[in-house]
Amino acid sequence: MCIIGNGAKGFFVTLEGIEGSGKTTQMKNIADFLARNGHDVVMTREPGATEIGSKIRSILLDPANRGISPKCELLLYGADRAQHLADVVLPALDDGKTVLCDRFADATTAYQGWARGLDMAVVENIYLIAAGSLKPDLTILFDLAPELGLARTFMALKNGQRVDSESRFEKEKIDFHERVRQGYLAIAEKEKERFMVVDASLPADEVFNQITSQLKVRFSDNQHGGSPPQSKSRKSL
Amino acid sequence: MCIIGNGAKGFFVTLEGIEGSGKTTQMKNIADFLARNGHDVVMTREPGATEIGSKIRSILLDPANRGISPKCELLLYGADRAQHLADVVLPALDDGKTVLCDRFADATTAYQGWARGLDMAVVENIYLIAAGSLKPDLTILFDLAPELGLARTFMALKNGQRVDSESRFEKEKIDFHERVRQGYLAIAEKEKERFMVVDASLPADEVFNQITSQLKVRFSDNQHGGSPPQSKSRKSL
Repeated sequence: MCIIGNGAKGFFVTLEGIEGSGKTTQMKNIADFLARNGHDVVMTREPGATEIGSKIRSILLDPANRGISPKCELLLYGADRAQHLADVVLPALDDGKTVLCDRFADATTAYQGWARGLDMAVVENIYLIAAGSLKPDLTILFDLAPELGLARTFMALKNGQRVDSESRFEKEKIDFHERVRQGYLAIAEKEKERFMVVDASLPADEVFNQITSQLKVRFSDNQHGGSPPQSKSRKSL
Repeated sequence: MCIIGNGAKGFFVTLEGIEGSGKTTQMKNIADFLARNGHDVVMTREPGATEIGSKIRSILLDPANRGISPKCELLLYGADRAQHLADVVLPALDDGKTVLCDRFADATTAYQGWARGLDMAVVENIYLIAAGSLKPDLTILFDLAPELGLARTFMALKNGQRVDSESRFEKEKIDFHERVRQGYLAIAEKEKERFMVVDASLPADEVFNQITSQLKVRFSDNQHGGSPPQSKSRKSL
């Protein structure tokens, strides 16, 4: 299975999942694993990785902004993405780095398309404007029942393991998060080659083991698949 | 000349022009004039008329954000517009009110399209996503040489007649503002029926007289043109 596709020299890996799915916690472990295996890793996230993006993120996540219209929300995510790609992702990929991004375009499709019900053609259109033909090489989906995800988020807040206050999205009803989950699974089903779906209900170390074994297979397959650019093949595990 | 076209019950009037063209100063006078003639006027502006929009406006105008990418900028204007239309403009037009808006979509075409050089198809695309088929019934363009506009803005800041600090756009070079002006004039030339172009270099009272005489003609023509909805014909001067 060849995971090359974004046209740049580096690898673009995105982590996706509902609130409480553990992706942010695992991100550092995955970055360390990749670094140990020769990757020059850049960790980033959407929304809010740039200075301008952090201001956009504040608008998007602030529970006070519950009156935000779905189109305004979609366009704000697009704005954050355009800035993020220009300032962070594309320069890093061009330098042959491995970009590990906490949420990307599939989140927009799942949240704004599947859960909010915005026209998918409009969602796709904004993506094309912001990102052009760029696609992640690999997307790790942390799949989890929303009940469990929200319970985890609540416990993390209560125990002080998480310092952010509850975001506007965490205040959405359970069926909203269920639609997000179904959206993610539908995208993963449609783009099997790009996706790695992990069972995020397992203990953290088992989730991590699942990911690293699959990463080994994928990067190893990549070494034998087609004629990858040198900087990509160098990073095979 | 019939100025009906937006499909809603009320009139949608937009004011456009470069920095220092005097449109914001004239807005209150125009609103008073329309109110004296039976219009129920709502004054608004882009960006920043809604609570969420005011946060977007801060990002857009803050000189510290000079690194904003043209696409991010365009998408932020779109986000502000989507929220503004949903919360302010469309409900007012549906109520048969006259909406007087300080800058709208032509500003995006002139600034982001003509001056920044973004693909016009992309600019148009974002407009369609944010606003659908809505178009202003009438656009008053305050035409002025940028040298004069920027000198006026500078004097207003110096004399304390203007409290905003200098915005990111006012820091642009003179040829940027010249491209904006040429953009505005090109749109006005293309859509003559919708536009009223006034010479904003004249003294304020003469500019106002130009506007009111043209408004009288336009609203009077409207009374005789076609079969306007009742709420629109009621507002003829």
